[in-house]
Amino acid sequence: MQILSGKEVSEAVYVDLKKKTAEFVAINGYAPTLAVVLVGNDPASQSYVESKKKACISLGFGHRDYHLSETVSQDELVKLIKDLNADSSVHGILVQMPLPKNLDADLVIETIDKDKDVDGFHPQSVGNLLIGLPCFVSCTPKGILEMLDYYHIETKGKHVVILGRSNIVGKPMAALLMQKGRDATVTVCHSRTENLASYTRQADIIIAAIGKPLFVKPEMIKEGVVIIDVGINRIEDSTRKRGYRLVGDVDYDQVASHCQSITPVPGGVGVMTIAMLMKNTLQAATQLALKDIE
Amino acid sequence: MQILSGKEVSEAVYVDLKKKTAEFVAINGYAPTLAVVLVGNDPASQSYVESKKKACISLGFGHRDYHLSETVSQDELVKLIKDLNADSSVHGILVQMPLPKNLDADLVIETIDKDKDVDGFHPQSVGNLLIGLPCFVSCTPKGILEMLDYYHIETKGKHVVILGRSNIVGKPMAALLMQKGRDATVTVCHSRTENLASYTRQADIIIAAIGKPLFVKPEMIKEGVVIIDVGINRIEDSTRKRGYRLVGDVDYDQVASHCQSITPVPGGVGVMTIAMLMKNTLQAATQLALKDIE
Repeated sequence: MQILSGKEVSEAVYVDLKKKTAEFVAINGYAPTLAVVLVGNDPASQSYVESKKKACISLGFGHRDYHLSETVSQDELVKLIKDLNADSSVHGILVQMPLPKNLDADLVIETIDKDKDVDGFHPQSVGNLLIGLPCFVSCTPKGILEMLDYYHIETKGKHVVILGRSNIVGKPMAALLMQKGRDATVTVCHSRTENLASYTRQADIIIAAIGKPLFVKPEMIKEGVVIIDVGINRIEDSTRKRGYRLVGDVDYDQVASHCQSITPVPGGVGVMTIAMLMKNTLQAATQLALKDIE
Repeated sequence: MQILSGKEVSEAVYVDLKKKTAEFVAINGYAPTLAVVLVGNDPASQSYVESKKKACISLGFGHRDYHLSETVSQDELVKLIKDLNADSSVHGILVQMPLPKNLDADLVIETIDKDKDVDGFHPQSVGNLLIGLPCFVSCTPKGILEMLDYYHIETKGKHVVILGRSNIVGKPMAALLMQKGRDATVTVCHSRTENLASYTRQADIIIAAIGKPLFVKPEMIKEGVVIIDVGINRIEDSTRKRGYRLVGDVDYDQVASHCQSITPVPGGVGVMTIAMLMKNTLQAATQLALKDIE
């Protein structure tokens, strides 16, 4: 059984990105720059934003942080994004989700210039992804592909069963894996799927992204499966100081020995996401620099 | 065994559209208007364009036909589309595909104003479709949903196996059926799928869109399946005057008796496509009229 280490893969990505960022700065005379917009004071969101800032600093990226109060109006937020769209010193724009309920997240995402849409959530990015055209690929699915490639896990002709149909993981993951070149036979299961285990038992590769702690059990898989566990769930654990521990959507302790390979939680897919955001930001800066030359 | 008649469903759609179009004209004082752009002299494309024109006339829609020579430049074609985008008397724009190879079809499609994208091929329409936001749904997948609804064929919790991963049928069909509300468990098979029959034999609903004549055989299905056959293939037939006949991707004669229901070819999905184009054009005109009021 092989453990697919997001830590190892993301470290390799960062080494490569550091080199390419230095090259970019040497050629262009400025650094790729990410603008991160945070609305409100959700502690989890604040901690994500902080991690993104740290990643920028560690790579020599520029970063701009916009922290708006929860009472910001839709118009003010849209205006900020339009200003960032027009600002040629900003190459990537990320609005930390979720937004407060009174704001229209769809409209906010649609306002982001698609050339700066490093989160890959703009409908046009998503459409290009499904069509198979070049685009910013959203960070979690992109991170999963990066891990599969790093460990030479072939998807061609394989049956990939995806658990979960979210817009940030399940749907784009399915879209990516069914493209020519990836060539997987993809099944998407979700809360309405009947007899879900009958699908997972046939899978060569399972991608679990349903947000149900320890959901995938040994009797639901076949021997030698590859499992990518996207879930990050807190469950009570009185033996830990903080009173909880993090587990995935897969019952790792029970399942791992039956797998060909599996991602741990934490240390699996989770750590890939910010690495991919940085990769997208460098890509945005590079594309915008080329556009400038044209 | 029930035959799912595209003729019957499309006639019902036309009756409804005629009524709604008359209402639209009474309220707005003008008719929904479709611009169709044809480049070159491909006979099949000319015949499709002719059918679309006839449908417009039969419903009381306005239509504008632009027939450009094969030698038209990319810039001229893009300029025409931009003019149509700006022309408030045009509500839907359709560029007949395929375009001559020297033209960039992706760029042409992306030029169409998404508010007039009645073919639903613009990346932003496709993205909204995958995300689950309101959009123009491309005509063949939309026609299939219309048929399923007309015949009260439930997709919730059902295993739908789609054969083919094209941008005009397979991929958008998968995207639509996995959304909340439709709630199917969707598998997409294609040319690289290994042991394809093992998937089709498990399907509650098969949607065949691979362009291989008579491909689906009785041993590939389970008793009581619902089959939607999107294929339209010519095969030689010396008993016919014209020397060929049209068949689907399913071996209808062998398969039909094992099905709960099945679409014939011709007379199945094919006739739905233009009906859905008309429905999208009325939708576009209605939305643009509302926008004008705002």
